Parts: sequence; structure tokens; C-alpha cells
Amino acid sequence: MVDEIQEGSYVLLYLDERRSYMVRVERGKVLHTHKGFISLDDLIGREFGTRIKSSMGVDFVAFKPSIRDYVYKSARGTQIIYPKDMALIILFGNIGPGSRVVEAGTGVGALTTALASYVRPTGRVYSYEVRGEFLEIARKNLERAGVLDYVELKNKDITQGIDEVNVDAVVLDMATPWLVVPHAYRALRGSGSFISFSPTIDQVVRTVEDLRANNFADIETIECLIRRIRAERGKTRPETLMTGHTGYMVFARKTIVSP
Amino acid sequence: MVDEIQEGSYVLLYLDERRSYMVRVERGKVLHTHKGFISLDDLIGREFGTRIKSSMGVDFVAFKPSIRDYVYKSARGTQIIYPKDMALIILFGNIGPGSRVVEAGTGVGALTTALASYVRPTGRVYSYEVRGEFLEIARKNLERAGVLDYVELKNKDITQGIDEVNVDAVVLDMATPWLVVPHAYRALRGSGSFISFSPTIDQVVRTVEDLRANNFADIETIECLIRRIRAERGKTRPETLMTGHTGYMVFARKTIVSP
Amino acid sequence: MVDEIQEGSYVLLYLDERRSYMVRVERGKVLHTHKGFISLDDLIGREFGTRIKSSMGVDFVAFKPSIRDYVYKSARGTQIIYPKDMALIILFGNIGPGSRVVEAGTGVGALTTALASYVRPTGRVYSYEVRGEFLEIARKNLERAGVLDYVELKNKDITQGIDEVNVDAVVLDMATPWLVVPHAYRALRGSGSFISFSPTIDQVVRTVEDLRANNFADIETIECLIRRIRAERGKTRPETLMTGHTGYMVFARKTIVSP
Amino acid sequence: MVDEIQEGSYVLLYLDERRSYMVRVERGKVLHTHKGFISLDDLIGREFGTRIKSSMGVDFVAFKPSIRDYVYKSARGTQIIYPKDMALIILFGNIGPGSRVVEAGTGVGALTTALASYVRPTGRVYSYEVRGEFLEIARKNLERAGVLDYVELKNKDITQGIDEVNVDAVVLDMATPWLVVPHAYRALRGSGSFISFSPTIDQVVRTVEDLRANNFADIETIECLIRRIRAERGKTRPETLMTGHTGYMVFARKTIVSP
Repeated sequence: MVDEIQEGSYVLLYLDERRSYMVRVERGKVLHTHKGFISLDDLIGREFGTRIKSSMGVDFVAFKPSIRDYVYKSARGTQIIYPKDMALIILFGNIGPGSRVVEAGTGVGALTTALASYVRPTGRVYSYEVRGEFLEIARKNLERAGVLDYVELKNKDITQGIDEVNVDAVVLDMATPWLVVPHAYRALRGSGSFISFSPTIDQVVRTVEDLRANNFADIETIECLIRRIRAERGKTRPETLMTGHTGYMVFARKTIVSP
Repeated sequence: MVDEIQEGSYVLLYLDERRSYMVRVERGKVLHTHKGFISLDDLIGREFGTRIKSSMGVDFVAFKPSIRDYVYKSARGTQIIYPKDMALIILFGNIGPGSRVVEAGTGVGALTTALASYVRPTGRVYSYEVRGEFLEIARKNLERAGVLDYVELKNKDITQGIDEVNVDAVVLDMATPWLVVPHAYRALRGSGSFISFSPTIDQVVRTVEDLRANNFADIETIECLIRRIRAERGKTRPETLMTGHTGYMVFARKTIVSP
Repeated sequence: MVDEIQEGSYVLLYLDERRSYMVRVERGKVLHTHKGFISLDDLIGREFGTRIKSSMGVDFVAFKPSIRDYVYKSARGTQIIYPKDMALIILFGNIGPGSRVVEAGTGVGALTTALASYVRPTGRVYSYEVRGEFLEIARKNLERAGVLDYVELKNKDITQGIDEVNVDAVVLDMATPWLVVPHAYRALRGSGSFISFSPTIDQVVRTVEDLRANNFADIETIECLIRRIRAERGKTRPETLMTGHTGYMVFARKTIVSP
Repeated sequence: MVDEIQEGSYVLLYLDERRSYMVRVERGKVLHTHKGFISLDDLIGREFGTRIKSSMGVDFVAFKPSIRDYVYKSARGTQIIYPKDMALIILFGNIGPGSRVVEAGTGVGALTTALASYVRPTGRVYSYEVRGEFLEIARKNLERAGVLDYVELKNKDITQGIDEVNVDAVVLDMATPWLVVPHAYRALRGSGSFISFSPTIDQVVRTVEDLRANNFADIETIECLIRRIRAERGKTRPETLMTGHTGYMVFARKTIVSP
């Protein structure tokens, strides 16, 4: 059973590594690009991954969007955690199918999308956001990515407390993660993961201090640098420009002090 | 419902970031370390994450093992892909709950463990290994990690062909990934991910050439550097020693050339 | 004896880390910037390093240009070796006061400027450039930096041979450094340094192979990554963008095979 | 005129990139290594760079020591600044032939050796060290490297003040560089360079704050990562282990506030 593009499917029309377009396929709809237009009717019934020519004869590929595509397309100019960092947050944070995860702040829902994709089908993401105006944007992004059912969006200030208990992980992308450390301790099950993402080293130091003071252990702080390689016989070299810093990630696990 | 340690549970007895011990809890069993012994009986009925003192009064934590713990403990001196690279393989390769993934070679099953953990509960990993002696080791590691049910171990040479069709991803950690490119093309669904991990740049160049010649697109090659930070007020600095290179990862997606 | 700005002095009018202007001080001359104008008359007789306000009241500093300033200002849009790489070429290449150095190609004379600055006052740089049109540009840049006297510019193709003998170092920034390896061997004194700078790994591999085949030893290939840090209490972090790759440097020393 | 090894010459007997021996050539002296012995008599009258076989038939090269060799061999187990960082300190600090440089602390004289090598023949290094026991070690290292004549060793605490005025650069490798900022300001000529090297980010932040408060400009903080590449056709890759952190370098230039 081949996976076919249908009315209502989301498709990533891919031109090259810099230019791609996320569209919802509808009858009669046309995508206009500077490389010509593409009639979306022509995609219906085709297999995902099909190459299609624009009106100017330029090759596009109609990819089925990946988690990373949904994440990038949800950003729309706002600052989001990069997928490289999300990947580490998820694996090093031991977040996977079935995990119950508390997240703050939701923002446009980019990290929420990745978390929800990985806790499926039996897990759940409880996502706190104090700025109400973001929640509607996040909801739309999660719906497009097909993961809204696995998320509970909460218009609450997580520094005031966490409603959930016995969760597997608490993931923080916010200015003052250290304020959440005691709440995270109460919300987590024993062995559960605390994860915070912070651009500055000052945030890291305060957070690590509070983790040490609150019975967390196995505390580690890392940053991740990705280097892209141009691989071509006779011309192989790393790319000239590189993202030099996105943020630091702090990981820790909750311990129980026995009486 | 707190998660309690029971007979048969695996526990990570954690001393510090360099020393931890994975044990299966059994009545009457004792763990001997250079910091004293711990009677595993004492753990039964306690919550995961509990701190426990050894006979020498040294603090250990009885963590519930994470995916990363199972991965590291399966290595036992062999060369495995690092969890940092696994994390990127999984997220950038769009592997998640429900994915059907072909992998080669199995080795001790370290990457297999991570893949299986993330395709749960409805996905499946088909893992090829030509060296039969590894399969039993891999099976034990997968069983311990609780993910054997999601894996089909195959004692086959993947360069001779792939049995499965319409899979979501093909992940290669082997000396000659380029030999598998045509097989991977046939096995993948449209938009499906090809991923290879290779220590040398020469392997990357050959693989990328063959991907270009076999209708793959969105080909990217990256490497990932992790820097660990010692975060402590007045003494904050990156760690002196660093893993400078593990390997390059090549990602690509299958395209369909329409007739 | 304070170092005073005089007529004819070169001055770096520094606004911030992105904007600075190299000017030659002349009576009646005015520098126009988008932050107002500065009458260069006002600088005469002042100490280097003096702060001066533009007509719009904006602070500039009249620095005495450094070697790095001369290097950067000689580039004018062409591709030059970065000062970070020059620094390593010079120290790892054991180039210092008194060294006799062969260089190719000259280009705009950026690396030549740095080399000449460090071989002063008794050393000499023999700089080969096959493209005659560059030599006049290089001459002007070297003259402005005050180091022309230490350089011999040669409109010659170094792949055809090197005129000098018994030199301390041969430094190559050109497309085919391996073609120069046998010539470099003849030109160098025993223990002398071969250094090549190449953007691609393919160039490195060919060069290293030829060095091994031509009695060079202590061959090492490195690349240098510089990370800039924004240091500010409460906001300290590495900069977001980073130069991810400039080129690889190969170092080797000539050995003599005794009869 | 070939450069010949004589009695009294220092020679680097090089076996491979990990093992090399610095010796002073004397009649009758023998170097014993685990790869056999070498009679130093045999080197006299030979050209530097000559290959020589040990008693076990293993090839060594009798290199003329480079600045980097002298630097490394002066360390003898103490913590010294790495040559990669020295190279940047020197070029980015605009230190060259003729420069007058204040340095603290001297330690074993490793950085002093590099600085002295580059200010020759008309410049001078004034090197402060409060721990008297180091000065004799430094003196021997500088003498061996042939640069003692360009150095004034001072058994003084630089945080109490700097004797020299109108110097070109102040270079600090000490625990509390910020305490020296006001002294450095008085000692430097306008446009002169302040450079400090510090392992921790906390030291950097305090130093940068004090530089801003003391009329320094063009303040920049960097760190330098060197990656070594194993270049061999079919096996080319960066080395597995890497030095992940040595220290941060802060550079600044003195400005004069006109009355």
C-alpha cells in the first residue's frame, strides 16, 4: 500500500536545501513560486516523494513532511529551539513513546510538535505558556503536524506550580528555568528527567546550583555544534558559515532521599 | 502509582558521571564495588531514583535505566554509535512511533536499542547482520532493554538485497554504505529516509555520489560535536577533553521519478 | 616619547567591531561616514589611540593600525587567509625575525604582509605570483603596512621551480600545493618548514601523500575554529554566527636522508 | 652555507608525533630510548634535519628545534598556554619584532619563550612572577631557547603595579587579570594591546567589565579550537580525541580620552 497524496494532505514542495514550501493540497489550488507555478490538483493520487515540474520546467519534489519540516515551518520568524537540540533533549531526556512530559513555554509549539511526535500514541505533553496569544498559533501548528491529540495546552505560569504529578520529564525553554526546579522536583517521578535549554551561561549556572540543592543528580550541561559538509569529489569541505551557538542544555535526574 | 523496583527490575546504580553499574535485581544478590557493597534486596519495593548507601557509607542512586543507559551498557568495549549521533539519526531521519526501519549492521545492538525504543509500539526494526556471532549478543541487549519484541534480527548480508518494501527509513552503520544505496531505494517508500553513519570522509563522498545517481534528494552531510560544560559559579568552563570526531552522518530522501 | 599621529601616518578610525576606516592623514582631508565627518587635521599631533568625536558627536578612536588591521584592509573583497590561520602558519611554521620565507601565491599581499611583519628586520619574504595584475595591488598594500622593504615580489609560476635555496619556510596558498612539494624540498634547509593552506580535504590528501614521498616528516594537518564570546554579566554566551571553515593547514619539516 | 649541528647545539630527536627528545649535543653523550640508543657524536657536523638510525635500526630525525619545540619541552608537566593560543596572542595582540611587552606570570617561561622569539632583536619582554622558585626554571628554559637576552625576569607582584611605561602590549596569564587592568592602562602606549588568557568564563566577565570601565576599546573575547586531521587516502577523518578547552583570550586596545 503506497502512501498517496490526497485532498487535505500536507506536502513539502522541495526545490533545494534553502527553498521549500509547505502546502495543504486542495482542488483548484495553485502554488506560485519565483520558479513558476504548480497546480496542486496534479499531486492528488501521486505517491509522496514524486518529482513534479513547475510551469517553468523546474523540478520540485512533493515530499511527505517530516517532523523536522513541521518544526521548521512552525517557526515563521520566531526563535525556536533547533532540531539538533530537540533531538538531544528527547534522547538524552529519555523521552519516548508513552512518556508523560511537562513543557514550558509553548511558544509557537515547535518543540511541542517534536515532543508530541515522540510520546505518541500513549504519552502526553502538558505544555505551559503564560502568553495567551501564542496558544492559538501553537494549536494550529500542532494540528497541521497531526499531533494536537497528544498535547494539553495550558495558559498558565509554570513558575507558580505544576499541576501534574509522576511525570517522566520536565522540559523548559524559558528565561528563568531555575524558578521551576522545586516544582519540577514535585512533578517528576523518581529517576525522571529535568531538561532546560538556555542561551546564556549565567542561566545555566543558576539552574545547576538549584538542581544540586534540590536532590537532582547526574547533572550534565552540554552544547551541540553541527557542522555541515559539502561532499563532492575533489571539492569536499565543511561549509563556510556555521551556527556557532544556539543554547546550552542542562540534564538532570530526580533522586529520592530515603527516610 | 509510583514506579517501584521489583525482583527482575534492571537498575542503574549510579555513583558519579564516570561510574555506574547496571544490575538486575534478585533476592540475595549483592553488588560489590570499590566503594563498598550494596545488597540488592534493600532495593525491592523502593521507588526508582532512591538514594542508597553502600557498606562504606557512599551514596549511590538506584535509577531506572534510560535508553541512553541501555545503549552505553550494551557496548562493552566495542565501537558503537554515540547517543548524540543516534539522536540526530532518529530525529533528522524522521524515525518515530510506528516507523518501519531497516538497519545494518546490528553489531551489539546499541543503535538497534535506540531505534526500537522510538518505533514502539506499532513500528518495527529489521536489523541485518552478516556476522552471526553478534546476533546473540544483540538479542540479549535488546531483551534487557525491553525492546526485543519490536526487532527482527536477520543474519543476512544487506549488500545482497533488502527483503522489506515500503519502509520508512534505512539506517546504515557499516563499512560500505554505498553498496546498499540501490537496495535502499527499492525498499523505501517515497519520501523515506536514507541515513548512513561513516567515520571517514571518503565513505561519505562515495555514498553521496551514489545517492545523487539513484534519485535521492535533500542530501545532507553533517557531523555533531558535543561540548560538555562544567557549570559552577566562579569556575565555569568547557571540559578540557572532548570527543573530536565520531563520524559523519549522511541523510537523504527518496524521490519518485514520474513517468 | 609618546607615539604621535603625523601627516602621512596611517590611522584606523574605529567606530565599533564592524565598522572602522583606514585613512592616511593629510592636511585638509576629511573622512565622511554615515555617523558624521571627521577632519583629519584634528588628529595631527595627537597620541595614537585618541578618542575623537565626529561632526554628529559620535565617538571614534584613532588607533595605530595593527598587523591585523593592515591584513584585513588589504583584502577589499578578495578571499584572503584569515588572521587566525596566519597566526598558526607563522608560529607552527617556526617563522620569525630573520627567517627567509618563500610564499605563493601573493594575491593582494595579505599573508605577505603578516609574514613580512614577522621576519623583520633581517629576514625576507620571496613572494611568487603568476597573475601579474595582483602584484601592483600587493605592492601598495605592503607599502602602506610599511613592510615592502622585506619582500621580493616575483611574477613567476612557482610550480616551475623556486629560485632560492636554504630557506627556512615555504608557505603555499594556491590551488595545487602538491605540485610544489619537490621544489620546496630543494629550496628548504634541513628542518625547514613546508606549510600549505587549502580549503578542500582533497587538496590536503594529495599534498600529504607527496610530502610523505619526498622525505618530509612531522607532517600534521589541522584546522582552526575560532569562537567569539559575548562577555557581559548575565548575558554571556558564544556568538550565534561563526565561521565554520576557512581551510586546512598542512605542516611538515624537511629531513635529510644521509648517504 | 648549510646549518650544521655542532657541539653545544640543541637537537630535537624526533621519532614520531608523540615521541621526541630534546638534547644538547656533547662529545661522548648517548641518548637512550626504548627504541635503542643514539650516540650524539654521530650528529656533529651533520645538517639539521638528518635522519639517523638508533642502535635498534629505528629512524629518528635530528631536527633543529622550533619555537614550538622549545615551548613544549619547557612545560615538563606544568600547565602552560598551548602554542595555538600563543600564536593568536602574538598576532592578534600585534606583538612583533621590536615590541616592548609586559608579561605576567612567568611560570616556567613557556609563553615568555614565544614572546621573546618574536620581539627579537630590538624588542624586550618584561616578565613578572611573584613565585620566586619559578624564575630559575624560566631562566634555564629561555637560555636553552636562546632568547634570554631579550627578557627581563622580575620577581614582583604585578597586581601591585607595573614599572614600565609606553609598552606595546601587556599579556596576562594569571588568576586575577582584572586586578591588573588599571596598571596595564598606565603602562601601555595609546593603541597598545591588553591580552589576558583565562580558563574560566567568570574570569573573562570580570576582566571585560574592568576593561570597559578603564577606557579600553575594541574588546574581544575568543577561544580557539584546533582539530587535527588524519589525512590518508581512503581513511581521512578528524582525530577522535581533541582538546576541547584550554582557555579564553581577551583582547583590548587602550584609548586616550582627550581633554
